[in-house]
Parts: sequence; C-alpha cells; structure tokens
Amino acid sequence: MNKTPQDNQEPVDVVIMAAGKGTRMKSSLPKVLHRLGGRALVAHVVDTAARIGARKVVVVTGHGATDVEAALGEGAAGMVPQFARQVPQLGTGHAMQQAAPLLPDDGTVVVLSGDVPLIGDATLRSLIAQSGGRRLALLTIRVEDPTGYGRIVRAPAAEGEGEVQAIVEEKDASEAQRTIRETYSGVMAVPSALLKPWLARLDNKNAQGEYYLTDVVGLATIDGVPVVAHRIEDPLEVAGVNTPAQLAALERAYQRRQAEALMAQGVRLADPARIDVRGSLACESDVEIDVNCVFEGAVSLGAGVRVGANCVIANARIETGAVIHPFTHIDGEKAGVTVGVGALVGPFARLRPGARLGAEVHIGNFVEVKNSTLAAGAKANHLAYLGDATVGARVNYGAGSITANYDGANKHRTVIGDDVHVGSNCVLVAPVTIGAGGTVGGGSTVTKSTEPGVLTIARGRQASYANWKRPQKAPKD
Amino acid sequence: MNKTPQDNQEPVDVVIMAAGKGTRMKSSLPKVLHRLGGRALVAHVVDTAARIGARKVVVVTGHGATDVEAALGEGAAGMVPQFARQVPQLGTGHAMQQAAPLLPDDGTVVVLSGDVPLIGDATLRSLIAQSGGRRLALLTIRVEDPTGYGRIVRAPAAEGEGEVQAIVEEKDASEAQRTIRETYSGVMAVPSALLKPWLARLDNKNAQGEYYLTDVVGLATIDGVPVVAHRIEDPLEVAGVNTPAQLAALERAYQRRQAEALMAQGVRLADPARIDVRGSLACESDVEIDVNCVFEGAVSLGAGVRVGANCVIANARIETGAVIHPFTHIDGEKAGVTVGVGALVGPFARLRPGARLGAEVHIGNFVEVKNSTLAAGAKANHLAYLGDATVGARVNYGAGSITANYDGANKHRTVIGDDVHVGSNCVLVAPVTIGAGGTVGGGSTVTKSTEPGVLTIARGRQASYANWKRPQKAPKD
Amino acid sequence: MNKTPQDNQEPVDVVIMAAGKGTRMKSSLPKVLHRLGGRALVAHVVDTAARIGARKVVVVTGHGATDVEAALGEGAAGMVPQFARQVPQLGTGHAMQQAAPLLPDDGTVVVLSGDVPLIGDATLRSLIAQSGGRRLALLTIRVEDPTGYGRIVRAPAAEGEGEVQAIVEEKDASEAQRTIRETYSGVMAVPSALLKPWLARLDNKNAQGEYYLTDVVGLATIDGVPVVAHRIEDPLEVAGVNTPAQLAALERAYQRRQAEALMAQGVRLADPARIDVRGSLACESDVEIDVNCVFEGAVSLGAGVRVGANCVIANARIETGAVIHPFTHIDGEKAGVTVGVGALVGPFARLRPGARLGAEVHIGNFVEVKNSTLAAGAKANHLAYLGDATVGARVNYGAGSITANYDGANKHRTVIGDDVHVGSNCVLVAPVTIGAGGTVGGGSTVTKSTEPGVLTIARGRQASYANWKRPQKAPKD
Repeated sequence: MNKTPQDNQEPVDVVIMAAGKGTRMKSSLPKVLHRLGGRALVAHVVDTAARIGARKVVVVTGHGATDVEAALGEGAAGMVPQFARQVPQLGTGHAMQQAAPLLPDDGTVVVLSGDVPLIGDATLRSLIAQSGGRRLALLTIRVEDPTGYGRIVRAPAAEGEGEVQAIVEEKDASEAQRTIRETYSGVMAVPSALLKPWLARLDNKNAQGEYYLTDVVGLATIDGVPVVAHRIEDPLEVAGVNTPAQLAALERAYQRRQAEALMAQGVRLADPARIDVRGSLACESDVEIDVNCVFEGAVSLGAGVRVGANCVIANARIETGAVIHPFTHIDGEKAGVTVGVGALVGPFARLRPGARLGAEVHIGNFVEVKNSTLAAGAKANHLAYLGDATVGARVNYGAGSITANYDGANKHRTVIGDDVHVGSNCVLVAPVTIGAGGTVGGGSTVTKSTEPGVLTIARGRQASYANWKRPQKAPKD
Repeated sequence: MNKTPQDNQEPVDVVIMAAGKGTRMKSSLPKVLHRLGGRALVAHVVDTAARIGARKVVVVTGHGATDVEAALGEGAAGMVPQFARQVPQLGTGHAMQQAAPLLPDDGTVVVLSGDVPLIGDATLRSLIAQSGGRRLALLTIRVEDPTGYGRIVRAPAAEGEGEVQAIVEEKDASEAQRTIRETYSGVMAVPSALLKPWLARLDNKNAQGEYYLTDVVGLATIDGVPVVAHRIEDPLEVAGVNTPAQLAALERAYQRRQAEALMAQGVRLADPARIDVRGSLACESDVEIDVNCVFEGAVSLGAGVRVGANCVIANARIETGAVIHPFTHIDGEKAGVTVGVGALVGPFARLRPGARLGAEVHIGNFVEVKNSTLAAGAKANHLAYLGDATVGARVNYGAGSITANYDGANKHRTVIGDDVHVGSNCVLVAPVTIGAGGTVGGGSTVTKSTEPGVLTIARGRQASYANWKRPQKAPKD
Repeated sequence: MNKTPQDNQEPVDVVIMAAGKGTRMKSSLPKVLHRLGGRALVAHVVDTAARIGARKVVVVTGHGATDVEAALGEGAAGMVPQFARQVPQLGTGHAMQQAAPLLPDDGTVVVLSGDVPLIGDATLRSLIAQSGGRRLALLTIRVEDPTGYGRIVRAPAAEGEGEVQAIVEEKDASEAQRTIRETYSGVMAVPSALLKPWLARLDNKNAQGEYYLTDVVGLATIDGVPVVAHRIEDPLEVAGVNTPAQLAALERAYQRRQAEALMAQGVRLADPARIDVRGSLACESDVEIDVNCVFEGAVSLGAGVRVGANCVIANARIETGAVIHPFTHIDGEKAGVTVGVGALVGPFARLRPGARLGAEVHIGNFVEVKNSTLAAGAKANHLAYLGDATVGARVNYGAGSITANYDGANKHRTVIGDDVHVGSNCVLVAPVTIGAGGTVGGGSTVTKSTEPGVLTIARGRQASYANWKRPQKAPKD
C-alpha cells in the first residue's frame, strides 16, 4: 500500500507525538483518539505517514497509552506503527528522545503531531525535499495574528524564502520580531544522523523545566547545519485540536472539503454544508444526495443513485439506479448491505447487516431487513420484518408480516420460494419453508413448511356477536 | 398567464441559449436540465420569459436536444417555447443565427442563458426599456475580480452611466481597461430589426473559429446604433452554473431567498438555512416550520399549521391548525394529500397519494395511509396500514392493523363505518365492509363483511401447556 | 430562587415593556409571546430579572394583554410578575406611568423590553452599579451604522466614558453628532425616587404625540442629576425582535451560544450549527451528539451517552452509557421518560410519557413505548407497541406484538413477568398478566392471564389447499 518515496530520496521515518492528555477536551478519552470524520485523530496522521511512503512510524504515547496503542494496533492504511512510551512527559524534546532508539540512522525523520490530522501529503513531500538529507526543515505557517506563537526569524531574502536563523518565542521577541507573522507549526523534517546527536544535547534549563525539540534549531546553527523553512498558507493543514469547539470546527472544515471533493467528481449535493462522510464514499456518475445525509464506513453508490433527505448509510453498496428514499437507515456493519440495481428503499426503511437486495427489490416504510437475501423483484412494502430469510424472486411479502427467527434461544432460517404471496400480518415461524408459488392467507401463523403452489391458512374462524355491549367509560373517582 | 408588456413597448421575444453540454458538470444530463429548487435550470428561464410577457420564446438546443425539448414541451409557466437546433455548435453568434428565422422582425429580442436561472424580472424590464426599440442594451455586472471577463468600456460619464464603446476582452485590454470592474453578463436586449442584419454579418475570424454574439457591439458602433448598458449589482442574477459546486451554491442562495420571502410573509422558520422549498409553498398566517424540512411540488399550509423538525412534505394541502409532528413524510404526487383542520399527524407517519384526512383525524407513529379517506375524528395511532380504505367518523383503528387491499393481482376496497372500533393486529381482507358501530376483536382476520353494531372475532382459542420445555441454546460447534 | 442583590445595593425592581403589537411579525400572537429557544421572549426577560435578584417585576401589557398575562402567570424562574395594563398605548413614558404605582419608592428601577431577550445579567448588574442609587444610568451600544438611532452625546472624556449630556435623535443631530456610533439601547436603571417625579413631568408635545421615556434625560439634566452610560459591545444583548427574520436570526445566535456553552463543558457536537436546545440540556462527561438533533424541555444526558443523528428528545433523563440511535423521538411531556444505564434505543423508536426503561433495555426500530416500565434487560426490538405495561426483567417482546390497552372506552394494564418470551405479532388484550417465565407463541391473541412458566398459544390451525386458484389481474375496461 505504501507508496515509495522518490527514488533519489532517503527513506522517511515518521514520529507522531501522541502522549498528551488533552485536559481541555474535558474527556476521559485520550486526546488523539477523539474522532474526525469518524476516525481517530492520530489514525489520520498514521494514514498520512503511510501515504507519503514512510518506512517506519513511531507513535510516542503517554496519557492513555494502552488505549492509543490498541486503537492503532490493527494498523491504519496498512501501516502498523511502533510505539515509544513517554512517562513522565517532559516536553517535546523528551518525547523525541524516547522515539530515537527506534529510528534507523539512515533516514529522514519527519515529526508530526497526533492531534494535527489534516497535514497534506504534498506539503510533507515538499518539506522532506527541503530537508534534502542535509538540512533541518521546519514547516511554517503565516497567520493573521501571531500573538503567543514562536516567530520564524529568517535571514534577509524575498518574503518567505531566507534561511531560518531562529525560532524566537513571543516573550523574547524584539518589537520588530513581533511583527513577523510566520510561525512554527510543530512539524519538521531532519536527517536522523543529524537529529540524534542534537537530541542527546538538549537540556531542560528553562522556565518549564522541559526538553524542547525546537532547541535543535539553535544546535543546528551552532553546528553550521542549514535550517530552512517551508511555508504554507492553509491553516487547516496545521490546525490542532485542543477543545471540543476546535474539534467541531475542524470536523466541519473536513466535511466541507469532502463535500467539495465529491462535487468536483460530479456528485450533486443539495447542501454541501449538510453532508457528513465518516469513512469513504465512492460515487459513480450522476449520483444525487439530498440534504442532511450521513455516510459511515465504506459506502459506494452506483451510477444514477439518488439518496433522499435525512438518510444514514453505513457499510453498504448501492447499485446503479437504486433510489434510497428519505429517512432510510442502512448499516451493514461487518457483514455489509447490498441494494440491487434499480431497487427502491424507504422511506423509513432499515437495512441491517447481511441484507442483500436483488435488482428491482422494493423495501417500503417501517420495514426491517436483517441477514436476508431477497431475489430480484421481491417486495416488502409495509411494516414488516425479514430476519434470517431467503426470499425468492417476485415474492410479495405482506404488510405487517414477520419472520419469527428467534425462539428465545436460537436463530432459525425462513425460506420463501419464488413467486410466493404472503398475506398481511402473517408470522412465519422459523425454521420454515414456503414452497414456490404458494400463497399464505392474511393473519396466518405458519409453523410447518408448505408445498409449492398451495394456499395455506392458519387462523381462526370468523364469528360475529350481535348482543355484545361495548365497554363503557369508567366513571372517574 | 403571461403579463402584457408595458403598452408603450414593442413586443418582446426571448431567445434562450441551451445548447451547451456542460462538460464540467460531469453528468449525462444536459446542463440546462440540472435542477434548481427542484426545477430544470432552463425552465426557470422560460418562467422568467413568461413573467415579463414574452410573445415568443425560442430555445436554442444542441447537446441533449431531445431531452431538453421534451422537458420543456409541456410548457413552463404556461409558456410553450419553440426550438432551434444548433448542430454543430459554433459559438453564441451561430446559436443566434439558428434562432433568427423564428424571430419576428417587429419585436425586441432578449437573449438569455439557459444556465443562468435567477435573472430578475425587473432587471429585464429595465434592460428592455433601455433598448427602447432603437438601442443595443447590454446587461452588465460589477464584479470584485474581473479577471478573465470582457470589460465594458464606456464613454466618459458618471460611474455606470456613459454609453458603451466596446466590450474589450482581457487579452486585448490596456492597463487602464483592466482595472474596469464592469463586465458583460451575456444578457442583451436589441430590436430584432437591428439584430438580424448584424447576425448575417458576423464572422468567425478569431482564435476559436467561432461566431461571437458580442461582435454585434462593434457592428452597432459601425452602424451608429447607440449601445447602452444596464448595470446591476446582484451577482446572483447573472450567476451561471458550470459545475456541481456552482449549482449547489446557487441552490443555497435560491433557498435562502425563498426562506426570506416566507419570513417576510410572517412564516416562522426555526432555521432559515435549513429549509428547502422545491416548488411552491403557500402559507397562511402563523405557520411555524421547524428545522430541516423539505417541501416539494405544490404545498399549502393553512393558518396556524405547525410542521415539526425533519419533515418531507410534497404535493399536499394541510388545513388550518393541523400539526405535523417530526419525521413525517407526505407525498401526494399527482393525487394529492389533504390533512384536515386540526388533524395531528406523526411522528413517523407517512401519507401517500390520495390520503384524505378529515378534521381532527389522528395519524400516529409508523402508520401509512394511501388512497384512503378518513372522516372527522378517525384515529390510527400506531403501526398500521390503511390502503384503499374508506374510514368513517370517529373510527378507532387499532395498533398493528392492516387493510389487506392487494390479493396479489388486484386492489380492493375496505369500508369501515362510523364509530367502528378495530382492535390490534387485525387484518381486514378487502373487499370487506365493517358495519357502522361494529367492533373487531384484536388479532382478528376479517374476510367477510360484518353487520352494523356487532362484535366480530376471528382468532384461535387460547390454550396453555404447562409441560412445555423452552428451546435451549444450541451448542456451538 | 432569586439571588440577593449585592448587600450594599438598594433593592431592584424591574419594569418590562410588553404592550406592543408587533405588527411586523404578521402574527396573531402578541410579539413578546413569540418564542426563542422554545420560550416566550418576555419569559426570558422575566428570567433575567429573577437572576439579578429583582424584588419585583412589573410587566406592562397592552396588545394581547390577557394572553401575555396568562403566559407569565405561572411564573418564570420562580418569579411571578405583576401586570400594569397600558390602554391606549401612548409611548414608552406613558407605559412607565402605568407601571409607576406598582413600584416602591425605595428601589432602583430597571427598565427592560419584553422583546429584547438576551440582555446579560452581568450587564444589568453593572448598569445598576452605575446608577448607584443616585444617577440615571443608560445602557448604550456601539453600532457600526447608527443611522436612525438616537445618539449618545457625552461630555468630553476618554471614549465611552464621559457623562451623558443628551440623547439626540437622528433628525435633530448636528453633522458632528451624526458621526457618533454610541446609541441608546432602551434599557435604563434609575432610582425610583428620581424616576417617579420625572414621569409626572413628561409631556407629549412632539410629532408623534407620545410620551417618551427618554425625555427623563433632559429632566435629569435640569435637576442636576448625573446621567451616566454603560456601554456594551455585544449587539446580541440588546437585539430586539420585530420581524420573523429577526426572530430567526436571534434564534440561531442563541442556539450557537448554547452549542458553544455545551462544547465548553466538554460535550462533543458533530455540528454546532445543527443543534437546537429549547429548554435545558444537562450533560455529564463524554456526551456525544450527532448532527441535527433537537432538545426540548428539561433533558439530561448521563456520562458517555451518545445521541445519533436526527433525534428529537424532550423531557427525558438518559442514564450513563445509553445509546440513542438516529431517528429517535422521545417526549416525556409532564410524566417524563427515563432511559436506563447502557440501554439502546432506536433507530426509529418513539418513547412517550411515562416510558421507564431499566438498565440495558433495548428498544428497536418502529417500536413505541408509552406509560410502561421495562425492567433491566428487557427487549422490544422490532415493530411493537407497549402501552400501559409493566414488563419484567429479561423479557423478549416479539416483533409486531401489541398491548391492546384500550377497549374503546378505558385503558387497562398489561403485566409481563420476568423472563417471559412473547412471540411475534401477538396481541395481549389488557387487563392481562403473562406469568413469569412463560412463553406466548407467535400470532397469539391472549385475552386471559397465564400461569408462570407455561406455553400459551391462541391461534388457528394451519391448513393448506392445493387446488386453489390465485386471483387474476382484472381486465382493464
């Protein structure tokens, strides 16, 4: 999966800072496990590392280390990281010191933050190129209001170009330096062979008593190693998450970008501000998505698919020309859901894991389908439940009918042959088979399998009583 | 329907450019058939032509001509256009040349674009007045960034007033001309008698080898015909649609305007950014609409109607004082839906074509009504289906009850008399009549009509078995 | 409930102007009864008066006086106001004259508007302090465009500080005065002992023939009473409601603030622009709320509760760890709803008043629960109705099953013992008890109570008919 870095480049190893607690999130969840687009912040960063062809990813963990490591253990984008524990947490330099033993000596090290999820691949590739196997390359960003940030002091040159002389902290900055709007992003690329000795030379003689990774700039200058900066303009790329409000703002920006990407492909969105994609949404041509839909996991929509307002769709494949009416809830979870070509689903339908709808199947309002296969042209249009069922072609499954698939202990299968007509409010008590072409009269509870082509009735005889008195309203006490 | 143009004016004929493919839409649908507010872009333009009293509308078609002509064939706003095919497509001047034979000589020709749907009536009337039967009048717009647009060069005068000397393309513009922010919109009005000879004189001696309609400005100058510009400020009026993103942006602007218009009438919207009106929404006084509702087709809401959050309502009349609770889906399609005075519908209700609810009817959760009439005071509050039914006044239709209206081949009618009480989980197998005042016991399947006033029961006898063993969980293999 | 004003302060009495008709609202509802965040505008103002420790609140009513008085009669925030009727309505000074007899002589009077709902407590406390028992204190606001507003003319001093010399109306303002951007908000604080004599001296010799309360500024100057201004920056605090559009804009601003407050507490919102809180929403730690949810009345969410997209929740308590899936509608109204620890509800579930779900209860799709208690671990997962039922622990209530709680005249109770298994599409005709550990076969209508542990079946015998002919499609005429 990992793309190879450019051939003329050294291997890239990525370190991701993920030890922080995130107190301002006011959450028991470690900060980097909060989700953006349905995925842990730090997993986005691991994905990015994989996409730029990292040879190795080291995640520095601390607060909630067990949870963070467990969350990343299965790998993100095919990349299984290694972990370095930072206990106690004595600053960014200290964090890197924990990671250093896991880093080979021959690569370029890229330092990323586990709570800065939207850093761009192209940006990192440029930064790595700037490092070029012999320079310390800092990623910088021009901000409107630099108050509180370390300023990037450069040698005189065209704007955004001169070599970096220092990162000057706000409190140490001169009047002139304070007007600088280029600030450090927390991201750097540096050859491992340069970085490791510097890490060993860091000290904690400062107000906080911490080891600062940014002190490597001074060490580089001392050693005569060039320090360069790659300046970007898009604040989203380096936006970090410290509070629920920042997380929500980043989520909206992320969703906006996904909406724009979908539209750029030709997807028609009724409102780009009212779609949420938490995972991957693959769309073929002429897909239309109405307002306020949510997509989760892996969803793919075939050509001409229309999704109505207020749908929630997760882990499903919707085939060409199918129409998902408003208020439909689909979640295939691990088993997936398939909606066939030209099928109609909803409104108020729910498709659960293992629902497999063939071509032209109709699932109507207040109908639930779970772990069931419906062959082409089958219909369950009203208030029905199909669970653990195999439904033949052209079956008409009546309003209010239920497959009783659970006997209180085990689940059993219902088989309905082709062309069967099941009446209203029937119960099919599984295991049971309704033979092809058969009919089940409305209101029947079917406990024994039936032969093909027969009419089956299982209900009481109708009787009327003329002298019956209706209940009267009880007198109030 | 068409309003007469001002009496002192010449007749107006409108040409709508609708031949483009719209490659950037990445869609198999011709560009002008993409929908804004639920209606094809070009249909909005035909509507506008009708509203300004056009005598004739000529639509120039090309890509997808058959589809475009079919879509407009039934007429929009009562206006049935004529069509001129442009094959191949050799520029805007060439398009007009195809339309010219259909244009009378005695009118003013207004040129519009089929993908610019929100041009204002008043703007066009002003433009026509500026043309005044003897001038070439261009519609212009002042933009923030004119890069890439043709600039309007005027004779010296007060800003936005002098006569137009030329439309200068970006590449031909002088330094001074490039600072001009007034640009041509693509819309013009010109007497037919002037236009037609100019069209004959257009040539295609330019880089693209196309015939440009804007070349008539030069011909007017040569002929000494005054060229004037009517400059507007609102970019929405001349906003065209080239990409899905532009379409979505225009949709939101359009919806915002509709929301503002509704509020100006007194409608109370919980969130003007979360309402979609695709068609006409007529509201009487004191209507309240909660967040995230969608209206389609022709919908009218009586005085004091409240529509809850997340409703989708199409082609329906909701009478005074009715309350539509959240998550209600109403679509009358061609047959329409009526909800009576003071009725309560939802949440999670669905009203389908031909649902006619009388005054004070209650339709509750998970209830579907189709092609059925419910007289005043009837109630179906829970998990029920009423299809092809005639339901009397004050009927109580029990939870889970179903009209079995479809025998697998034909639909039949169920008639329920006044004051009938239908118990829970009943099936009424149509055709069947429940006599007025009758009662149907819960769980009954009724296949034969019943007399008025009687109690009808059709269910099995209850028996209990003490020595029965429950199923046990099957051992896993 | 009312907080005591600071000890060194005089008592505070509040007058709320609420007599206006609000013609531009185009509504039959008196303007101050329009709702913001689900609560009448004027009720917000009474709340504020209560929070700042007002001794007495006098509401001046006029248009729709009966309705306004009725709406406030039960008290807001524990504060029951007194009412002064203003008929006819001859200006703000005249309104105060009606209120004056109800005001004690020893307090500070604060004048508020019933249609300005978001005035801040701290702002009013500062204003009262500025009045200090001896000054007329005006609340002013700096606006971008002061056109049309009365300007605050101050004695020379640092910006926003000098003593007020006059409120100059637009038409009377000099060129220099027109550039003033500080305007009067309509809110003042003044000792009752100063105010009352001034009210007696107001006249209506002006163009409108009205008595203006702002004329007290001139009277103060004549009397040598200092006039001070407390200037605020936030326009929302003094934003009034005159049109539906203004009401909607204020609603969004109000909702945005509530969203921010929730996030500041640690609540995770998928989209802060798509949540509506109309009442109080109390959240414990690690609550997640997905897009497009609406909360009404008093709702509290326990630690770790997750609320899915498109839920409407009112008057309910959701315990720790419960999950509310999308499209769930909960409204406890007066009786309330409780969802137990770790319970799962929805999608497409509806909980109505008196629904009490124990720990780990599951309520699934198309299920309605009303006035029913479900003990720990009970499940009703599909298409079911539980009304007036007492459901034991670990009960499995089958798909499509219904408690027939209403006999057409009275409601009766259903009791289902612990560990009961109710099959699919059953009807339990109340009053009825299913003994603990019993089983009810699918499709049964149970009318008599059953012993514990038994299997009960009440349905017809199954029979099949081989020679039956299916209905044929009727020929079309």
